[in-house]
Amino acid sequence: MNVNGKAFRTIWLGEDGETVEIIDQTRLPFEFVVVQLRNVVDASNAIRDMWIRGAPLIGATAAFGIALAMRDDPSDENLSVAADLLMATRPTAVNLRWAVDGMKNLLLPLAPNARGKAAYIRAEEICDEDVAICSSIGDHGMPLIYRAWEASGKSNRVNVLTHCNAGWLATVDWGTALAPVYKAHDAGIPVHVWVDETRPRNQGSSLTAWELGEHGVPHTVIVDNVGGHLMQHGLVDLVITGTDRTTAAGDVCNKIGTYLKALAAHDNDVPFYVGLPGPTIDWTMDDGFRDIPIEQRDPSEVTEVTGRSESGEILSVRIVPGGSLAENYAFDVTPSRLVSGLITERGVSAASKSGLAELYPELAG
Amino acid sequence: MNVNGKAFRTIWLGEDGETVEIIDQTRLPFEFVVVQLRNVVDASNAIRDMWIRGAPLIGATAAFGIALAMRDDPSDENLSVAADLLMATRPTAVNLRWAVDGMKNLLLPLAPNARGKAAYIRAEEICDEDVAICSSIGDHGMPLIYRAWEASGKSNRVNVLTHCNAGWLATVDWGTALAPVYKAHDAGIPVHVWVDETRPRNQGSSLTAWELGEHGVPHTVIVDNVGGHLMQHGLVDLVITGTDRTTAAGDVCNKIGTYLKALAAHDNDVPFYVGLPGPTIDWTMDDGFRDIPIEQRDPSEVTEVTGRSESGEILSVRIVPGGSLAENYAFDVTPSRLVSGLITERGVSAASKSGLAELYPELAG
Repeated sequence: MNVNGKAFRTIWLGEDGETVEIIDQTRLPFEFVVVQLRNVVDASNAIRDMWIRGAPLIGATAAFGIALAMRDDPSDENLSVAADLLMATRPTAVNLRWAVDGMKNLLLPLAPNARGKAAYIRAEEICDEDVAICSSIGDHGMPLIYRAWEASGKSNRVNVLTHCNAGWLATVDWGTALAPVYKAHDAGIPVHVWVDETRPRNQGSSLTAWELGEHGVPHTVIVDNVGGHLMQHGLVDLVITGTDRTTAAGDVCNKIGTYLKALAAHDNDVPFYVGLPGPTIDWTMDDGFRDIPIEQRDPSEVTEVTGRSESGEILSVRIVPGGSLAENYAFDVTPSRLVSGLITERGVSAASKSGLAELYPELAG
Repeated sequence: MNVNGKAFRTIWLGEDGETVEIIDQTRLPFEFVVVQLRNVVDASNAIRDMWIRGAPLIGATAAFGIALAMRDDPSDENLSVAADLLMATRPTAVNLRWAVDGMKNLLLPLAPNARGKAAYIRAEEICDEDVAICSSIGDHGMPLIYRAWEASGKSNRVNVLTHCNAGWLATVDWGTALAPVYKAHDAGIPVHVWVDETRPRNQGSSLTAWELGEHGVPHTVIVDNVGGHLMQHGLVDLVITGTDRTTAAGDVCNKIGTYLKALAAHDNDVPFYVGLPGPTIDWTMDDGFRDIPIEQRDPSEVTEVTGRSESGEILSVRIVPGGSLAENYAFDVTPSRLVSGLITERGVSAASKSGLAELYPELAG
């Protein structure tokens, strides 16, 4: 999507056709810094230090990391070293394993001198596939926004509420939850987005607000406490979030707080949609509560907030008294009964086993 | 309650019997600073600049402000000037008007030389009455915590979730929502409090966490997104919040985000209680949605967060991109259907017209 009027992806090849370039997302929203990844160590640092994040983008970066390694030394040994290095960055990231294993399976049978070129081609394919999937999620989700606008008589803006960042910054382009928003905006529908701040890491106020602003999409940042109140007063036409994991039964594991917004949507008859690439559905899981573990992160994300001081410095301030404990639950599970529909690259399905099975008959058990 | 092992109220007379002392709550949780109010200008500054906040404490401070004015000059003219000065600090605060009007009605009929003493006596009475009311809310609410502990077999701590600060810092002592918690803790019940951070002003992580910590009550700070997840996993036994306004029908207008927690409590069969002094019930209002206006505050509370830097400085950092708008809704309304009970100084009532009429037959219409 656009940054300062120019179209960007989150990862791309530099002018030399070999160096990989990314946006250092840790500097957003205050600085737009492009970083060059010159070798596999750079690529693994970018993943480990979360200069890039979001499952699809992690996978794409890992694939390019293997390509950089193969350009430098296409030996079996170096392929193995590079794969191990990348896998160690964020061991629980499913897309990381998928990308690295896929690259290994592709490259090992090839003669070493063919591996560099093949690796770059495949890494670029992975990016293009992700863009195609997200674009398609946008095409299927956009009519939901259009119909909400139509239902309100087209006299006002149509209000979408989103939580966390499931925009183009989390993918290669378009995003998942935000793809329908970008498609609607580009089509001239007057869409406005309520952006949940998304404590504790503030991906909403930092990343979602930034990317919507750069692309010119009207939006307003609110604290996470506000969504219910807006829905009570008719100020939200639909909710669209992303998801980290979706069970075969349609339960949605997403950033902490998603469940509260889904409850409010349900209580106020506001449709609650989830945008997701079909490949992220976990067909082995039925019951989100039983099967998805409660993950906790470092309490310092709760006790400290990072921002820009008056003097322009990026720094963290502590907001909790020294003697107080904090706990940091990262995700919650929104039960399928609260989800109006799943927006996938194949269409919109009910959040249920049968709904998903209709769209993905070859995968549903 | 206790601060560093010593019992405090939020407002008290100094050693000279005339100067009024308060805690500068804007310095919490990082600095405990006692401020002396030497005249009515000091008192009105304390209210206007929110060194103290919370309806009962605003009323008490205003009453003492009148007393200070009467000590300095008990003329009719000075009483009028002092009243106007105090009323201008926070014109929408109901308790402020109640306290100032009450003091005027008491003092005007008296001879000027009797006004100083009478004003101090009444201001102290106002404080004592508030302490008695809050203590009584605690006595009526404590059994709810005890019974939840008993129901869980007394084998574990009993978990209360609260939102914002309705503790002793918002009153003269004990608090409203937290009075039952302090009574339970003091009685040896192993109560633990989940403290909602309460963005945007963070009264939970700054004030509630601080006062619980100083009194020795185990507690854990969480971001506002977490409560629903905790309830889904059986980690909350009951919710207790305060309220800014309660309608005759039991609708509760409280800090933004309260409604979301009430929805989660309802969805998980967790009791949701509200602690309040009976005098704060608005008998003229039936329908919280129709009658309570949507109040918005300065967006800078959303775009900036204040805390302590590594070097010990208290400062604000901006967390939202410069081009993004923010909106700051201050309160929401939790409909009575989601409220398990109202804990008042007269007992626990159903959140309904008939429930409240049983406790307050002389006030209910």
